[in-house]
Amino acid sequence: MQLHMSSWPEIDAYLKTSKAIIIPIGSTEQHGPIGLLGTDALCPEIIARRAGDEAGFLVGPTFNVGQSQHHMGFAGTITLRPSTMIAAMTDWANSLRRHGFERLYWLNGHGGNVATISAAITSMYHDTTFGEAGANTPPLRCMSRNWWELAGVHELCRQLFPVGEGSHATPSEISITRYAFPDVEKRADISPKIAPVGPIFDADDFRRRYPDGRIGSDPTQASPEAGEKLVTKAVRALINEFQAFAAA
Amino acid sequence: MQLHMSSWPEIDAYLKTSKAIIIPIGSTEQHGPIGLLGTDALCPEIIARRAGDEAGFLVGPTFNVGQSQHHMGFAGTITLRPSTMIAAMTDWANSLRRHGFERLYWLNGHGGNVATISAAITSMYHDTTFGEAGANTPPLRCMSRNWWELAGVHELCRQLFPVGEGSHATPSEISITRYAFPDVEKRADISPKIAPVGPIFDADDFRRRYPDGRIGSDPTQASPEAGEKLVTKAVRALINEFQAFAAA
Amino acid sequence: MQLHMSSWPEIDAYLKTSKAIIIPIGSTEQHGPIGLLGTDALCPEIIARRAGDEAGFLVGPTFNVGQSQHHMGFAGTITLRPSTMIAAMTDWANSLRRHGFERLYWLNGHGGNVATISAAITSMYHDTTFGEAGANTPPLRCMSRNWWELAGVHELCRQLFPVGEGSHATPSEISITRYAFPDVEKRADISPKIAPVGPIFDADDFRRRYPDGRIGSDPTQASPEAGEKLVTKAVRALINEFQAFAAA
Amino acid sequence: MQLHMSSWPEIDAYLKTSKAIIIPIGSTEQHGPIGLLGTDALCPEIIARRAGDEAGFLVGPTFNVGQSQHHMGFAGTITLRPSTMIAAMTDWANSLRRHGFERLYWLNGHGGNVATISAAITSMYHDTTFGEAGANTPPLRCMSRNWWELAGVHELCRQLFPVGEGSHATPSEISITRYAFPDVEKRADISPKIAPVGPIFDADDFRRRYPDGRIGSDPTQASPEAGEKLVTKAVRALINEFQAFAAA
Amino acid sequence: MQLHMSSWPEIDAYLKTSKAIIIPIGSTEQHGPIGLLGTDALCPEIIARRAGDEAGFLVGPTFNVGQSQHHMGFAGTITLRPSTMIAAMTDWANSLRRHGFERLYWLNGHGGNVATISAAITSMYHDTTFGEAGANTPPLRCMSRNWWELAGVHELCRQLFPVGEGSHATPSEISITRYAFPDVEKRADISPKIAPVGPIFDADDFRRRYPDGRIGSDPTQASPEAGEKLVTKAVRALINEFQAFAAA
Amino acid sequence: MQLHMSSWPEIDAYLKTSKAIIIPIGSTEQHGPIGLLGTDALCPEIIARRAGDEAGFLVGPTFNVGQSQHHMGFAGTITLRPSTMIAAMTDWANSLRRHGFERLYWLNGHGGNVATISAAITSMYHDTTFGEAGANTPPLRCMSRNWWELAGVHELCRQLFPVGEGSHATPSEISITRYAFPDVEKRADISPKIAPVGPIFDADDFRRRYPDGRIGSDPTQASPEAGEKLVTKAVRALINEFQAFAAA
Repeated sequence: MQLHMSSWPEIDAYLKTSKAIIIPIGSTEQHGPIGLLGTDALCPEIIARRAGDEAGFLVGPTFNVGQSQHHMGFAGTITLRPSTMIAAMTDWANSLRRHGFERLYWLNGHGGNVATISAAITSMYHDTTFGEAGANTPPLRCMSRNWWELAGVHELCRQLFPVGEGSHATPSEISITRYAFPDVEKRADISPKIAPVGPIFDADDFRRRYPDGRIGSDPTQASPEAGEKLVTKAVRALINEFQAFAAA
Repeated sequence: MQLHMSSWPEIDAYLKTSKAIIIPIGSTEQHGPIGLLGTDALCPEIIARRAGDEAGFLVGPTFNVGQSQHHMGFAGTITLRPSTMIAAMTDWANSLRRHGFERLYWLNGHGGNVATISAAITSMYHDTTFGEAGANTPPLRCMSRNWWELAGVHELCRQLFPVGEGSHATPSEISITRYAFPDVEKRADISPKIAPVGPIFDADDFRRRYPDGRIGSDPTQASPEAGEKLVTKAVRALINEFQAFAAA
Repeated sequence: MQLHMSSWPEIDAYLKTSKAIIIPIGSTEQHGPIGLLGTDALCPEIIARRAGDEAGFLVGPTFNVGQSQHHMGFAGTITLRPSTMIAAMTDWANSLRRHGFERLYWLNGHGGNVATISAAITSMYHDTTFGEAGANTPPLRCMSRNWWELAGVHELCRQLFPVGEGSHATPSEISITRYAFPDVEKRADISPKIAPVGPIFDADDFRRRYPDGRIGSDPTQASPEAGEKLVTKAVRALINEFQAFAAA
Repeated sequence: MQLHMSSWPEIDAYLKTSKAIIIPIGSTEQHGPIGLLGTDALCPEIIARRAGDEAGFLVGPTFNVGQSQHHMGFAGTITLRPSTMIAAMTDWANSLRRHGFERLYWLNGHGGNVATISAAITSMYHDTTFGEAGANTPPLRCMSRNWWELAGVHELCRQLFPVGEGSHATPSEISITRYAFPDVEKRADISPKIAPVGPIFDADDFRRRYPDGRIGSDPTQASPEAGEKLVTKAVRALINEFQAFAAA
Repeated sequence: MQLHMSSWPEIDAYLKTSKAIIIPIGSTEQHGPIGLLGTDALCPEIIARRAGDEAGFLVGPTFNVGQSQHHMGFAGTITLRPSTMIAAMTDWANSLRRHGFERLYWLNGHGGNVATISAAITSMYHDTTFGEAGANTPPLRCMSRNWWELAGVHELCRQLFPVGEGSHATPSEISITRYAFPDVEKRADISPKIAPVGPIFDADDFRRRYPDGRIGSDPTQASPEAGEKLVTKAVRALINEFQAFAAA
Repeated sequence: MQLHMSSWPEIDAYLKTSKAIIIPIGSTEQHGPIGLLGTDALCPEIIARRAGDEAGFLVGPTFNVGQSQHHMGFAGTITLRPSTMIAAMTDWANSLRRHGFERLYWLNGHGGNVATISAAITSMYHDTTFGEAGANTPPLRCMSRNWWELAGVHELCRQLFPVGEGSHATPSEISITRYAFPDVEKRADISPKIAPVGPIFDADDFRRRYPDGRIGSDPTQASPEAGEKLVTKAVRALINEFQAFAAA
């Protein structure tokens, strides 16, 4: 069940049975020579919607642009200032709270978002403590989860891609988009086969260290089949975790 | 061509041929008893992506939550504060400018967004004048267009639905989502057949005036066939208008 | 009755009879070779004060600097960032609400302000919905009206100046300031007689397109006599409209 | 010479002879039973315009709403948050700097504004140091002066009103508005003749301490004649001080 | 009693006896060739802690970076934008209010902070009036005092240093840090013996006028002995003033 | 070498040898019945200053209030909104950058700060990419390290306190303050001996779950001797890590 594909009476009815919602959150940023700019928003969206359909959960619209300043050296990347992201996420949360939602589960697809999501959740709780979320607003609980940290998923990534998984433009994440969009396949000469690894500072430094945008990965290993396995594993874990969160 | 479905080298290549991009922008808000909460984001997204595919334009990710405070009396609506929306749109624009984009065409699906989009564009130009868009940033031109104002579309709406088009939860917009998602059809007893009309103030007042969320409309007239006609008309007009804008 | 020319007991007494106030809002921006920089603040101030005197309405202080980034290429123009204008208008509104005002009628003199005024009103309603306007604050209704859209005024402009009214530094608005300040008359060689027309983007682009600041107008037609007719017409329409708004 | 009563070519010409401008700044707040809500904006406006006319200085539009939270217990008072006032004053300053102004003299009419004006000036200098005022922006100097601190004025106030000058709703400031607007005279029973004195905290506390809004004053002593003397004295001192500031 | 050296049950117990707290506030900025960058935070910290220990008052953590843009031409200076300082001080105050504190006494060590501290206090009161400090928050009273304005201190400064006290990097303030940290003594050739005096504008201008950072002072006169006298005098005055403030 | 205990010429000299600085950052929040409210600011301050003294590094002033909304149910806790903390940290960083610092090492003492520190660093890099850090500003590298994650420290904590280390108000952190301030020792009846564990949501929820403020810890095990071992270990690791960071 997707919020943006529902009518308001359907959400009204849902709220009589559950106060919990999953919100996919990602980014729009370069993912190397053959990865999609939308990879980090698409992966949690694909997983959350599948889980929502299977288990009857409500899935919110996707928060599709995030913290990507370090990728700004590559065309197509869009980034929010951290303060903007906190403001926008808080507006989403305060809106949902007015309708009675009390459990927001943010399914994240971008490591670079983790800190700002956490800061935004602190901001939401701050609004509870200081009364800025509005009078008579129910208490809120949030959790944030990266899809690759769902139970069993990280292990599966390592098993599928023991070499060249890396940390950006990984074969795992690209497999998921290849699975969801089998017609979309990018080709490029990739060299070196496995990208360098290192730290992340600002955008210029990033481009110098990682000339084609990959970090430690060999995304040519990606396949729709691997993507299907990852999605299946992630969906199952998400359903379990979300049910426990919603019931707590 | 969709930005989030492209790789960064593809955007690099695109920028050698064009500095222009279309960004669908809408909202997540109630659309009456049978309309989708995502209607206003989906309509421009559907039209823009179709046009982009046909004519080779680049279509950005969809800005999917907007100015919907007046719909906050209905479950599922999500709204941004105007200052948040201006900050987020400006961040999107400043990111795109860093890559060399000089023409941003915002295809809008929500009347309530019009003012804040315009204020955000003023803010972007302010950044040009006062140098806050960054050194060496090319000048920017934006335009904002509601899809129903594209050449010939308003006339077609009136022709298809001479009675009961109304201004919110209209049969025209719902036809477009019915056309794009033929399997998604909501049913409800709707009464009165044509909703009341009137002004818009705050959320409580809105709910009192428009108890099921519609304004002046009879959305039961919506059909996939009408949606197809509207999309076809809008796509053609959008291609013409965007080409002229990109070339100016 | 002007707020800034009243004592607080007089406002206390007024609030026992009416919860409505008119606030003139304009800008400080170039108005071509012979127009005053204050034209857009002066016109609504002149009309509102006259109406207030005739009909006993309360007129607030004039919000005299607005959205004028596109005129920044001409000396003397002062502009607010949209976010500043929203913050300031919201502060004015929240102050007035604390005293019991429930109807704010913004009489606007500058087309470039329209969007940001509307965004600011959305922000005020947002504060109502989310409780940020303060506890026990009465609901608020705002309306925004450009003086040239008051009933019959636009028609009178066209009748007085069938050729060369244009859209910036118009003979109509300059006639109003000439009528109110008969001793103030600027002279300049104006060429071409009727200024070019076109779109508005940023300040540099504006200056290139409209070298002396006018858009489509021939302000040399302006006269105190025409100004008097316009003010008389506008005042009558404003009284009618404001009475209806205050009573709704 | 008043900016809002000038054309842009006149400002262009002025900038060839001077980079300095006076900006009257005040507030809209209760001034006791017989004082005008606009007193603190009107006094510096009256003095600055007279000085500008006599000596050929440029006088900007009046910043007419300021820091008046402590007067919010009295109807008609309008106040800005300090952060809003800083943002707005900085926008004014940055606009003027773009045109080449390098000396901003803020003539203030409200003691409660002093701190925030000073903070705003710090903010403007911060923009110089950190480059946020824009590239190629000339260095800026500001000064802020309360009209009653102009040379000789305070002494004259004490001489005119040796008893009951007080510190809010003073006979001196009310004399100035009585002089400028001889037809505007409020009457009320005032008791006690001289208002109490004490500290200022929040609005509720203020209303309890100063039930009719006055602090330490007996404004019934105000007269147009005293106002004329004060304005004459202040204008002369302002001309001297501003000339020195502009030339430094 | 220092807040940061206490446990929460100790603060709970304190609040049963007093609702008042002293918060030292200063800056981190150059203090000439031999003054410490932390001088303005250290002086109020030293005085407040001594007073707190003697009289059993609670002393909060030190707000140690303030308004120092004009010193940015000298290495080591750190400055906040005024809007940041207002936001941070308001967060401190709103936190303390939640626990029941009703009297905040800011003991300040930096003249450049005075205006922004006052603006921040206005902001705190604004939050009271407009309900943004949270529901059920007790009313707040703040006072701000520069340590050199405590009763008798200014006189003692003049007596100790009749020549060369100056206004920045003064022998008085440096004496206090010399007294508190007898092992810390900087040496430098200082010329001229007494620094020039003049106005303060932006950072570049400041560095030109005051090449070694001093204004009007001869800090070589500083001594631990003078520091002891100043601290003793200030502590006694602070205890008296704070007791009166806490009891009011 | 401590910045606030240095003169500006000393910082000038330091910058000729190093562009790197350590900034201790913590919080002011309850630490259970016997822990100090300042624990999380004191621990990194103690370690950083010791390391700075030993190895000649520069240590900045301590950022002493952080992200502590979840502790707001306990008296004495002070918290910043995330957006305030980002603004303040960015102001500190931009100030230091103006002087030529290029490496900021934030030594953190509070787990709850981690996300917002990271978001603030993203914000600083954003300012680099978008030019808002000022023209001619050198590129910046930041790192953030929790003191308990310095090489070998976590292992030592576990070795010293195999049972009851917990995650808040831990014997390790309290040992450090006991070592640094041997005269400060709080006593309280603590029950249960080991506090409960669980998740963290808002302040009310926290107080219900953790009635005396501890999470999973038995702080009665703390001792000055353990503190000395921890500080010694941490200092050594910090010197190594900072030297590598400064040299990179």
